[in-house]
Amino acid sequence: MPNAKSRMPSSFHIEPRTLRRYSNDMTTHDNAIVRPPVDVLRWQGDAVSGFLQLLDQTLLPNQTVYIDCRDTQMVHDAIKRLAVRGAPAIGVAAGYGMVVAAQYLPNNADFYTGVEAAAAYLEGSRPTAVNLSWAARRVLGRAQKTYSDDFNYVRAAMLDEARAIQFEDEAMCMAIGKHAAALVERCTGVLTHCNAGALATAGIGTATAGMYLAHAAGHRFTVYCDETRPLLQGARLTAWELMQARIDTVLITDNMAAQVMREGRVQMVVVGADRIAANGDAANKIGTYGVAILAARHKIPFYVAAPYSTFDLSLPSGDAIPIEQRASAEITEGFGRRTAPVDVQTYSPAFDVTPADLITGIITDRGIIEPVNEANVRRILGSTS
Amino acid sequence: MPNAKSRMPSSFHIEPRTLRRYSNDMTTHDNAIVRPPVDVLRWQGDAVSGFLQLLDQTLLPNQTVYIDCRDTQMVHDAIKRLAVRGAPAIGVAAGYGMVVAAQYLPNNADFYTGVEAAAAYLEGSRPTAVNLSWAARRVLGRAQKTYSDDFNYVRAAMLDEARAIQFEDEAMCMAIGKHAAALVERCTGVLTHCNAGALATAGIGTATAGMYLAHAAGHRFTVYCDETRPLLQGARLTAWELMQARIDTVLITDNMAAQVMREGRVQMVVVGADRIAANGDAANKIGTYGVAILAARHKIPFYVAAPYSTFDLSLPSGDAIPIEQRASAEITEGFGRRTAPVDVQTYSPAFDVTPADLITGIITDRGIIEPVNEANVRRILGSTS
Repeated sequence: MPNAKSRMPSSFHIEPRTLRRYSNDMTTHDNAIVRPPVDVLRWQGDAVSGFLQLLDQTLLPNQTVYIDCRDTQMVHDAIKRLAVRGAPAIGVAAGYGMVVAAQYLPNNADFYTGVEAAAAYLEGSRPTAVNLSWAARRVLGRAQKTYSDDFNYVRAAMLDEARAIQFEDEAMCMAIGKHAAALVERCTGVLTHCNAGALATAGIGTATAGMYLAHAAGHRFTVYCDETRPLLQGARLTAWELMQARIDTVLITDNMAAQVMREGRVQMVVVGADRIAANGDAANKIGTYGVAILAARHKIPFYVAAPYSTFDLSLPSGDAIPIEQRASAEITEGFGRRTAPVDVQTYSPAFDVTPADLITGIITDRGIIEPVNEANVRRILGSTS
Repeated sequence: MPNAKSRMPSSFHIEPRTLRRYSNDMTTHDNAIVRPPVDVLRWQGDAVSGFLQLLDQTLLPNQTVYIDCRDTQMVHDAIKRLAVRGAPAIGVAAGYGMVVAAQYLPNNADFYTGVEAAAAYLEGSRPTAVNLSWAARRVLGRAQKTYSDDFNYVRAAMLDEARAIQFEDEAMCMAIGKHAAALVERCTGVLTHCNAGALATAGIGTATAGMYLAHAAGHRFTVYCDETRPLLQGARLTAWELMQARIDTVLITDNMAAQVMREGRVQMVVVGADRIAANGDAANKIGTYGVAILAARHKIPFYVAAPYSTFDLSLPSGDAIPIEQRASAEITEGFGRRTAPVDVQTYSPAFDVTPADLITGIITDRGIIEPVNEANVRRILGSTS
């Protein structure tokens, strides 16, 4: 197959259309410089000879290894085996995956058939990830719209679009962070569950965004991370990324959260969300609902941090959200060896729904929805950030 | 050193004083035969040549192995490394440990010095285990009271006393079970935390006692077991022992309890206790307090099952109970491999205190304390079973 990459000089240069204002010098609410504690992914080089570097999150926290994705299959497989995870980060990876795919396509009419096939292929890596499909289709659309027989110009436009997705994601995190930082700055301790952190986005995360900004602004506080069984995202990912930023981090098992609250160690809980209904009911990692109940008992404000895109206003409430079941082995053999009887039954819901009445506020990139009800959801989402 | 064992014919026979009415034919509230699902410990043979067999609980759930304890050090080490655990079971093991010790003592005045030393030695295996010291001292006292120059008669009396401790423990479990079974029989699902089961006693457990009796009486229900991080007693022990009795058992991670309750899967929570204050505040394994809060939110009755001996009426409330911290590695390397960042801080309280206002009732061997308040605690404990 003709290979555009092999025929292009490596000095080939493209001016991206998108203003890169968020990528290297993001500012806090008080103008300190804030970078994510780690690069989850980064594009190296230009559209024709460059490649995508992805942090292999399956090796965290023990090893920090980047995968150089130089063909579409590598991007596909990295998404599939959760080397990159978190809806926003997956979307960004898929966008760059389209650019990698275009490097191998012929400089003729088959190019456009090829990028369509690449989008479908990448979508298959995690069929339920809406962001993935959205991002791949967006870069595909840019290619189709750019339509030209200068195929390197089309490739450059695709890279520009992928970068735009990344920068928008960084900006979304920053916008959430600016709203959240003021809340974090009132606290000496914050509790979070699972990972709605920088590792799940191209920026400073959603639930973590206010923490990074408050810390950069000089506020000192402790973050209690629920380890988050069965897959331990809190232990493996959240604790790790907060430690990279030198935020004071304390790891607990999920069943210690109530005692931590009772001892007055935290004044705020903040978590992410997978999907939020029109009334503010929020689906998130299993255990979130329980943490919300514990927070209510201790009169500790419970916040959800999530972008505009997480809302599904077609759902009147969380009751309509089906609860996926996870594999039994995640509970019984989750740590590399069997820790439960052979043939024991398990019940393993992947997530739960926290009802709006337990949520103090939802911190979005467009503002804070508080109190949480449908009128306020629609009002804040209808505004611009 | 003279060895009584080597000089005694193996047919040497001793009639125990204690009526063994509870050991082999315990009856349910409706007269079904109920045995513990597994022998946690058993004495084999007579006082002079017999030995203690202990189930090695560190190998559960993967292997069922009994240790033949033929000298005091083996009993000491088994207690120390948690091969036997649970306050009642440790007490029973220590009682038999005294009998093993006496087999090696000379048939002269040094015998009594020797049994005193053995009690002190066994007490050192787990210094904070009150039951252990109590049981060892009780068998020592029986030896001293029996005072005779027929040393095999003294040894037989010691075995009789150790058996009495075991039978009383079995009877305690049975008495709790009779009160609890009626509550279990109203449910299609019950949730429990940690292991307050047969494996922690010489009988059918405390929190589990009502389950075994209700099951034996033909009632069918499901028990949801919290895995109970960090040490997974729910996964390794409770799920295992319930499965031995063919009770329908479902294992969940601790953070799934709220969702299980929300779905209406359980109509009762029952847990054990390490220590209960005069007002009914109950200290138990970390996570119990959180489960109690979740149960209250879902209007699910929350019961504590514990014997008379668990109450410490010198404590006006649970506030006076200090919270021990456990080692960080139990959280970060609890499964044989590291699952958290190197040098991450942890906070690891070993237990928590559930306030009386969250406890529907305390099921004791003397009756059910309900509602839970100091007047009712004193009234029920003042009665006989």
